[in-house]
Amino acid sequence: MKDAMNLSEMEVGYDIPALPGMDEADIQTPCLLLDLDALERNVKKMGDYAAVHGMRHRVHGKMHKSVDVALMQVALGGACGVCCQKVSEAEVFARGGITDVLVSNQVRDPAKIDRLARMPKLGARTICCVDDIANVADLSAAAQKHGTQIECLVEIDCGAGRCGVTTTGGVVAIAKAIEAASGLKFAGLQAYQGAMQHLDSYDDRKAKIDVAVAMVKDAVDSLKSEDLDCDIVGGGGTGSYYFESNSGVFNELQCGSYAFMDADYGRILDKDGKRIDQGEWENALFILTSVMSHVKADKAIVDAGLKAQSIDSGLPVVFGRDDVEYIKCSDEHGVVSDLNGALKVNDKLKLVPGHCDPTCNVHDWYVGVRNGKVETLWPVSARGKAY
Amino acid sequence: MKDAMNLSEMEVGYDIPALPGMDEADIQTPCLLLDLDALERNVKKMGDYAAVHGMRHRVHGKMHKSVDVALMQVALGGACGVCCQKVSEAEVFARGGITDVLVSNQVRDPAKIDRLARMPKLGARTICCVDDIANVADLSAAAQKHGTQIECLVEIDCGAGRCGVTTTGGVVAIAKAIEAASGLKFAGLQAYQGAMQHLDSYDDRKAKIDVAVAMVKDAVDSLKSEDLDCDIVGGGGTGSYYFESNSGVFNELQCGSYAFMDADYGRILDKDGKRIDQGEWENALFILTSVMSHVKADKAIVDAGLKAQSIDSGLPVVFGRDDVEYIKCSDEHGVVSDLNGALKVNDKLKLVPGHCDPTCNVHDWYVGVRNGKVETLWPVSARGKAY
Repeated sequence: MKDAMNLSEMEVGYDIPALPGMDEADIQTPCLLLDLDALERNVKKMGDYAAVHGMRHRVHGKMHKSVDVALMQVALGGACGVCCQKVSEAEVFARGGITDVLVSNQVRDPAKIDRLARMPKLGARTICCVDDIANVADLSAAAQKHGTQIECLVEIDCGAGRCGVTTTGGVVAIAKAIEAASGLKFAGLQAYQGAMQHLDSYDDRKAKIDVAVAMVKDAVDSLKSEDLDCDIVGGGGTGSYYFESNSGVFNELQCGSYAFMDADYGRILDKDGKRIDQGEWENALFILTSVMSHVKADKAIVDAGLKAQSIDSGLPVVFGRDDVEYIKCSDEHGVVSDLNGALKVNDKLKLVPGHCDPTCNVHDWYVGVRNGKVETLWPVSARGKAY
Repeated sequence: MKDAMNLSEMEVGYDIPALPGMDEADIQTPCLLLDLDALERNVKKMGDYAAVHGMRHRVHGKMHKSVDVALMQVALGGACGVCCQKVSEAEVFARGGITDVLVSNQVRDPAKIDRLARMPKLGARTICCVDDIANVADLSAAAQKHGTQIECLVEIDCGAGRCGVTTTGGVVAIAKAIEAASGLKFAGLQAYQGAMQHLDSYDDRKAKIDVAVAMVKDAVDSLKSEDLDCDIVGGGGTGSYYFESNSGVFNELQCGSYAFMDADYGRILDKDGKRIDQGEWENALFILTSVMSHVKADKAIVDAGLKAQSIDSGLPVVFGRDDVEYIKCSDEHGVVSDLNGALKVNDKLKLVPGHCDPTCNVHDWYVGVRNGKVETLWPVSARGKAY
């Protein structure tokens, strides 16, 4: 694991972008920057919200892939554990000390099932999702082989149209099969409505989640009539957690992006019509970039392109500046419109990435800053753990 | 460096996707797969082309970021060296045994300039680009400090509108300043027309390159009249190398994507109107992915999403199959349209990525296969070297 590496043996500008104790001005670009004050406020705010609403918060570790951030979310935000999307990712969190880990995804490959079944031996409660009754026997055999228990949620497709069961009958059938299988335990439902999280309007999001809540409630009630209780009814993201929290059905949130924020989430509106990055959540994650050419009067070329971010959800936004705009992205360069000639070579800009999850996934390190100093250097612990 | 790691200490499905000797069927997904036969044929073909046309070939290492692939391009393709876009990337190639390395980009940050000036001590001829006369003194001071020599190319902006000088007068002024500076040597011109490489039509590409060639010829002639010879006149990519090779002005090619190919390059047309991936170059790079959910009759969900590729240049194409289509990409999932129900859970597909460069950059390993067996496991040596 990267966090077992000795930072003193690493070279700034080759292995790592910065060392703790450095001035912020000396950080090597491009890299991921975390505003630790903003991050801590976001984490605490969501933790407080969940506590007040009687919800557990299983933070989405797939967003940051960082053991350090996850441990902070447990300590400061009262998170009950982590969810993530891959078995190898889950192992990173379990090895890093997270004791309750949900793979919020299907696990079908025999080698991956075997690794999942060994995960409880790392000291973590191990949970995965199931959307196909054919999966149950394989999971059960692996758990029995290793003498462990895998808890299973039945995944409901509540609108994303991807994985997940679409009928209550289907949910109940799989739940019964899980409960009957040695080495497995039926633990509840996974119902994350991913497709609606980024709809701009609060009312549009609410309309979508109302459908999801009705589906989940029907499933919970039907399961109850079969004596199958849902320990976990999980779902909810940064664009919807207040709906799930007030649904009377969900009991676990799975928010990820709220901690860092990104430009795409920032643009969605809260119930008062206000952008959520202008009140609800602070931008805590930035791509720090430097101007490395400015021979055209009206544009600066910066050193953060496609290899420093993902632009699937739009280009990054230059933080705190209305006078310049990131207008084009190629492999290693960004073009920043600079109509007033405000920038010069080696000036640094903080970019709010369009989409935080795949942007974090291209970097090896988070540089945590506070009061102009580098305070922490955290590995993106599960980077590359795509298996 | 990753290639100093001991593979026997690594766990398949956690640290690495496969081990040499494995059957192709046992590779853990998602991962990058290299068809070694196709790769070798591509590398040899471009090497032969360059030799026949009296061109040096400085292969673009930014595409693959792999020391192993670069060494193969030298050994099998007669490459004279490597170009890449970042100082940290260049150091990886120099440390890995490439003895002639061009940073085909501006180097402006003081810490990066210092690292660049130390690079000749790794045994590599060290070349960078300059587009601003203000850069010359800084490069010179660093070379003198370390007692090394940095060779400099003046970068001409021949249409990309990014870095680079736009007038012959500007080129000559910078070249003179370089030649006069201690520790530096004027080595020629960098003139890569990136913006036109992906234009579909051969004639459109030719029209763009004709403009570039005229600019470069004018600069070469003006430099010659000042007694400044261009050892290197470099440029040319997979979409244009035949133009530069026959220009009478260029003497170095800088092709990258030809070795692996991607869907975006594959769609461009050769002079006979034929897609270049259906004749000129073979697809050697794939994202291997597995079906991990198929509860909707008409679509399969696969395990390669945004964290296994970049979709900036379009979605990946399923290789060798007309019956299924990759239609949607989210963070960890891809949706594959499967109208005839041809796929089942755990089936594997080979995806041709939309854009190879940023796709390679999210992976840690290349799995090289031949005749159904894993033959090599190569690190993406310069992954994360964005500085």
